[in-house]
This record gives sequence, structure tokens and C-alpha cells, in this order.
Amino acid sequence: MRTDQMIGKQSVRFACAPHIISAASVVGKKEGEGPVGRAFDRICEDDRFGEDNWEQAESAMQNEAIRTALKKAGLLPSQIRCLFGGDLLGQLIATSFSVEDLNIPLFGLYGACSTCGESLSLAALAVASGCADYAAAVTSSHFASAEKQFRFPLGYGNQRPLAATWTVTGSGAFILAPDGANARISGFTTGKVVDFGVKDSLNMGACMAPAACDTIYQNLMDFGRQPSDYDKIITGDLGYVGQTILTDLLKEKGFDISEVHMDCGIEIYDRESQDTHSGGSGCGCSAVMLSAVILPNIQKGVWKRVLFVPTGALLSTVSFNEGQSVPGIAHAVMIEHC
Amino acid sequence: MRTDQMIGKQSVRFACAPHIISAASVVGKKEGEGPVGRAFDRICEDDRFGEDNWEQAESAMQNEAIRTALKKAGLLPSQIRCLFGGDLLGQLIATSFSVEDLNIPLFGLYGACSTCGESLSLAALAVASGCADYAAAVTSSHFASAEKQFRFPLGYGNQRPLAATWTVTGSGAFILAPDGANARISGFTTGKVVDFGVKDSLNMGACMAPAACDTIYQNLMDFGRQPSDYDKIITGDLGYVGQTILTDLLKEKGFDISEVHMDCGIEIYDRESQDTHSGGSGCGCSAVMLSAVILPNIQKGVWKRVLFVPTGALLSTVSFNEGQSVPGIAHAVMIEHC
Repeated sequence: MRTDQMIGKQSVRFACAPHIISAASVVGKKEGEGPVGRAFDRICEDDRFGEDNWEQAESAMQNEAIRTALKKAGLLPSQIRCLFGGDLLGQLIATSFSVEDLNIPLFGLYGACSTCGESLSLAALAVASGCADYAAAVTSSHFASAEKQFRFPLGYGNQRPLAATWTVTGSGAFILAPDGANARISGFTTGKVVDFGVKDSLNMGACMAPAACDTIYQNLMDFGRQPSDYDKIITGDLGYVGQTILTDLLKEKGFDISEVHMDCGIEIYDRESQDTHSGGSGCGCSAVMLSAVILPNIQKGVWKRVLFVPTGALLSTVSFNEGQSVPGIAHAVMIEHC
Repeated sequence: MRTDQMIGKQSVRFACAPHIISAASVVGKKEGEGPVGRAFDRICEDDRFGEDNWEQAESAMQNEAIRTALKKAGLLPSQIRCLFGGDLLGQLIATSFSVEDLNIPLFGLYGACSTCGESLSLAALAVASGCADYAAAVTSSHFASAEKQFRFPLGYGNQRPLAATWTVTGSGAFILAPDGANARISGFTTGKVVDFGVKDSLNMGACMAPAACDTIYQNLMDFGRQPSDYDKIITGDLGYVGQTILTDLLKEKGFDISEVHMDCGIEIYDRESQDTHSGGSGCGCSAVMLSAVILPNIQKGVWKRVLFVPTGALLSTVSFNEGQSVPGIAHAVMIEHC
């Protein structure tokens, strides 16, 4: 007997929906000063997290997010069957060095800023299929390591265009199990690489919005739903620019999500006072918002059913410098109150 | 009812083992000139694969591997439910741009050169759990894009130490389904990050051997097996240096694998005439050897049960330049004749 069910073209519905039994968020100073700052589990005043460099800082932050989620669940690292994790850095060094001392079997993932959705999809699959009793999902990003990786050395103090987003310093970790707390992952829609030919790597909202549109549209079609069937449709880090494009693109396809749409990148910072232009972004953005804001609302039953859609821009400095476009990808996860 | 079964600490046995219904290998000129050259599906005389740069060449090669595997299976891209893919480049650009025109939902993976094992594990999980009727797994590496990413510009013509391996220009793709050809994935053992503190990024065999040891040992313990229960235990790209270390480490743990061990990196090149020092390496090495050499032997029943263990060295130029060690990871997949 097959436990899980393929739905439509790209979606899965779990016969036994895994529960998110605990979640944790660790963020930097700036995120702690934002409008939802008080909701995070830990705000670190030192963005180096006590380490020698930005990459190790990101690893330390991610490690702490995992350990905090484990502690909340009352579990030891040795009880976690496998961990699905990723970050934005080349060759996933933040994740490799973060999980090393935890001794948990690791599936390393890369989906740019969509990785939080990818990791939750696969962790849920591992639990739903009976391949894991407890599975973990973690992602992280760090403003300084990301700027160094993708843009300019911080010391340049370069100007940022208004369409640019600000990479969130943060890591969110989640523990999944067959039963537990009152939020469960009922299914997912796996994203495709969608390329509208946008070449402006500083306007990632525009790069990712077509992918978000594609995945949300496919989810609605696969399940025969309307946007109003969700209490919220929450994208990862489209920001203000990407949100407008997404809403327009979905309207062209016959769906108006404006009533239920929310974007983690828009919510995490105060646009005026924090100088973050189009909003927040990064693997950590959607992860910490899910942990600190979205899940509590689902657990309390304020939102009964949420479509959580982390969005990623697929580029490296090499592909960008070689003149390639910046395609997007978005992975949707359905999270329900139960 | 749960279909799949957790075995021991880190392993899974599938109740319905997915079949590898087709496989394809595309390689460069040097690999075609090696001892198993005639077994590959396509040998490209032009290592640029008709593209403008090495990264796009790798994408073109990977795309062709997927298309060849699809053709052999008599399937269209639209029939593949999801693809698990990865490569060695920062932010997986080879994979992102390779799969773009195929329009297949993508799970991007990074496990360095172990990614072939990771992709097969997860593709098998997707099929076994009923989340996919057809799933694909693909990995690639390219000598020139990898040298550019990790080491020196090719134009330097730098000397290579004898412990160094040669990155394979090649891509292997696999299509999995619930039924089909006579080779199936009966289970897997997921690897941990294992760090012996080795800092020599040009001796990747030494960096990865402890991880291979850890995963193979765990597989034998989880299933209560002896090395002789496998017709072959095949590592990905330890090369000559890593092979010796692996054999010694496993002997210390009470297992002698010398009778059944084989390493894809050792087999793919002729050590004397091809100047490849310790052997071949890269995400593509184990993938093309699985497709062209290992699977045909399993299908013919020459080997009834194989433990296939791609091995990865977890580093980036950033982590290396910051003085970090090079940990390893290895993902084992059990492939059986049926």
C-alpha cells in the first residue's frame, strides 16, 4: 500500500500528515529590532555569534537554532533520524560545519532562498513514509556572509538600489514527527525552475515572482482550490517589488490572492526606519518567520490552513558575470491547524 | 500503514523497492579514452559541449544525460514527477540551468561528490512512498569548471600532488519507477559529516575515507551484514590514497572489505597512461560509473547485491582559505538484481 498520494501534476497529499512538533528561531540584532523582533527565540547582539568570521558565525547561529528546537521538543540529537538542511553559501559550508558536532545524518539541499520549503517537503516525506520517526529541517542566511558571497565587501559601503532586499541574519529549525503539536504538513507542491530572463541580480523580487506564481497556480490547480481556501498564502522573500509582480501575474491567470497574501520579507523589517528597501530575503527569512510568527498563529487556530511558499533566486557570481539570467524557484508547503 | 522501514540507526529498507528503469552517461574526451570508455553512452570530443564557457558546458552535458535516460525509458520530461539533482559548483548553477528547459519539478541537492548517493536515496524514497510514479536523479562534474571553482585557473598549468584526484567530466542520470528493469534500490544508509581534521584539500581521498568508513560500517551494523554479503562495495572517488585508508579504518573496526571493494575513481582512468595520479573524482565520477559499468553488471546478475557509496569532501575555497578542515560525507545505496 502506498501511504502518500500524488495530486495533480506537481503536488503530494500525505495520508499521514507529519506534525511540526517544535520550531526555533535565532536572529541577528537588526532582525531583533524589527516589528516582530520580540517573537524570536534568540536575538544575538553580536552578529559574529562569538566566531572569527561570518561563515562560522552563520554555522554557530544555525547550530543554535537546531539545538533550541531539539530542546523544545525534549529530544537529543541522536534521536533525530535525518536532517535536511541548507544555506546560501557556495558548497553549503554554513550547514556542513553547523551540523558536524550534532552527528545527525545529513541531506544537504540547495534551492537558494526556497530551501526552507524544500527542506520541510523532504523532511515531511521522510516522516510520512516511515523512513524517519523524527526528522529535522534547518536553513540559515547571514547578511554579511551573503554580501561577501554574492555582492560587495561590506567595507565598500556601496549604495543599494531600491529594488534590492536585505539578507536576513537568521536561522530557523523545525522538528517533524508522526504526531505531536497542533500544526501539520498536509502536503506540498514542488517548484520548477522558472526563467523570465531577468538579469538584475539586485532585483530578486522580480526574478522570483514568476516562480512563486507558477508554484501557487499549480497548487491551486492540483487541489482544485481558490486562494480563499487558504487563510494565508505566504511567500518567502519577494519583498514589495516582487509582491506586486506576483499579484499581477496571478490575476492574469484568474486568481486574486491580494486578500490573503503575506510576504515574510515584507513583515520582518520596518521599511521606513530600518532602511531595508524592498524587504528582507535569504534562506533564514522565511524560516525564522515560520518559526516565530506563522506557526504560532496556526497552532492557535488563528489560521487554519496556510500555503507557505519560500522563493529562491538561482544565481551565482559566476553565472551572473557570464551574463546568464537569474531564474527563480519556489517550493510550497501546506501547513494546517489540527 | 507505513510502507518503508527504518533499520538500525541510519538505514532504510523499502517495502516496495523502486527500480532503476533507465540510466545514461555522458562524458568528456579523457574519460572516453579510459579503460571503460566504450561503455559510456556518449563521449564528447569537445569538452565545451558546444557552449561558450565551462559552466554552460556542464549544464549542456547534464541536460543530455537526462534526455538520454528519458529516451531509453521511452518517457517525456513531463512524465517525470520530480528530479533530484546536483553538481559541485557554487549555488548549483550547472543543475539549475541544465534542468530549466525540461520543466521538471526540482529538488536541488548538495553533498559534494556524494550527491549521486543522496539523489538516488531521495528519488527512491519519493517513488517508494508513492509521491512519484517516475523520479529522476542526476549529478555532474566537469574538470574545467571544478578546477576554476576550487583550485587554479587552467592556464596556470600548475603541478598536481600525487595524492590529488582528477575531476571527471561526466554526468549520469537515472530514472526510477515502482517497476521495470531488473535492478532495484532496496534501501539506503544516510551519511553524517565526519571530520578527521584533514586540511589538505588536494588529498580528498584522505578527507573522505573516514566518512566512507563510517557509512559502510553503519550499513553493515544496521543490517547485521558482513562485507561478503555484498558482491561489491563500491565507493565513489576515494582513489588509491583513500582506498588504502578506508580498508585500514574498517579493519580496525573488524571488517575486511578488501575482497569486495572497488572504487569508481580508480576504475575510470588508467593511472599510468592518463596522468591522473590518485584517480578520478567529482559528482559525475560515481554517476557515470554506476550508469555504464555497475548497473549493467547488476542487471545481468553478475553482481546480485551492491553497496554503492559515493563519497564527498565538504569544502569551499572560503572555508579552506579560512583554515577550516575538510570534512567528508558518504551516502550508501543498496542496489540489487531482481
